[in-house]
Amino acid sequence: MSPVSCGMSPGGLPPASLLAVAAAAALAVAAVAAWRRPRPVREVLFFPSRPCCLEALLAEAAAPGAPARPCPCPLPRADTSLSRLVRRLLSARRSLDLCIFSFSCPQLARAVHLLHRRGVRVRLVTDAQYMGLHGSQIGRLRHAGIQVRHDQHSGYMHHKFAIVDRRVLITGSLNWTTQAIQSNRENVLVVDDAACVKPFLDEFERIWEEYNPANYSFPKVSN
Amino acid sequence: MSPVSCGMSPGGLPPASLLAVAAAAALAVAAVAAWRRPRPVREVLFFPSRPCCLEALLAEAAAPGAPARPCPCPLPRADTSLSRLVRRLLSARRSLDLCIFSFSCPQLARAVHLLHRRGVRVRLVTDAQYMGLHGSQIGRLRHAGIQVRHDQHSGYMHHKFAIVDRRVLITGSLNWTTQAIQSNRENVLVVDDAACVKPFLDEFERIWEEYNPANYSFPKVSN
Repeated sequence: MSPVSCGMSPGGLPPASLLAVAAAAALAVAAVAAWRRPRPVREVLFFPSRPCCLEALLAEAAAPGAPARPCPCPLPRADTSLSRLVRRLLSARRSLDLCIFSFSCPQLARAVHLLHRRGVRVRLVTDAQYMGLHGSQIGRLRHAGIQVRHDQHSGYMHHKFAIVDRRVLITGSLNWTTQAIQSNRENVLVVDDAACVKPFLDEFERIWEEYNPANYSFPKVSN
Repeated sequence: MSPVSCGMSPGGLPPASLLAVAAAAALAVAAVAAWRRPRPVREVLFFPSRPCCLEALLAEAAAPGAPARPCPCPLPRADTSLSRLVRRLLSARRSLDLCIFSFSCPQLARAVHLLHRRGVRVRLVTDAQYMGLHGSQIGRLRHAGIQVRHDQHSGYMHHKFAIVDRRVLITGSLNWTTQAIQSNRENVLVVDDAACVKPFLDEFERIWEEYNPANYSFPKVSN
């Protein structure tokens, strides 16, 4: 039996062996790639959320590594839907794009403000009719230097979504109000699937441009 | 060189060849499995939706194959966010689980009613305070024999999600009202990712049991 007929290449290596080695190498590469690929983000949060103290979480985000001062409030430091939502927001390193119909929760406003102070580019779109309601955090965030834009329509800007670092989408039924967080049945979905995130990114940019103050119209005032 | 040393098994087949054949077969099986696997459902709908006529879509769903009667309304038969949402609902074959805060859109109610008539098991959870508002479709659907349950809390049952055949999740900011569909900026996300669908299925079952009328409490009336 010649070397070729028994599976040897003219150079000495059998083609079948080569194929096997190549297949094994391909499988190994695929396995390593799968192992190194970050796990997809899929998290669902339901509300109402149990009351909890977020001071330690916010303090750590404001000054990482600094000794934590104990909070005198009686609330537990617990893993709740609200604390998980805040953690997701605080994970932003470069950008946070917000489209929030009603925003009156002081804790979420503190998280957003903190990101702004940390140099994260925060852009906030909201609803013109709801941003002026009692308890709204929009004025405070705008005062802190965060860019805010709003609609000028009779319909509501009713979205409630956030995009962290143009990569992670946080969306659902939850308005960012204490009432919704503590009393309502609500959901928030957190995903990094590009097929979901990309359309929301595009929608945000569309709205951001449409609500550019340069496009605002004001009723004419007669002299 | 013995047959074994040149890569032949004692039975005559070279182990390297066997490995190559096995690897090729495994790759072929994986390729066929990937080809046969249904494409994942990822759809994002934004609102407001252009006005459109849904008569043909609903008529076809009510009597598949029957000759379509032309609709006299002036609206176009167009592919819009609303028509896509209705199509997703009408794709239900076995079950439709609904958790809808505010439900007053007649077209969506017709789609739900149609599914019920077609034998799809429809269960509807809604908000006690909103289900009695003017224009609500809840009474009509209940009257048609659809099972409806509602909360008894002061907080809102503020979810707006649907699960088709326990497999496809439809969720977002959109209340099922004509105002929201035609005038608001809203989003609806459609996904079949089990990591997203399963928690919503569980939440639905939790709420369905919690809102069982056997658990309703009524204020005592003194004689």
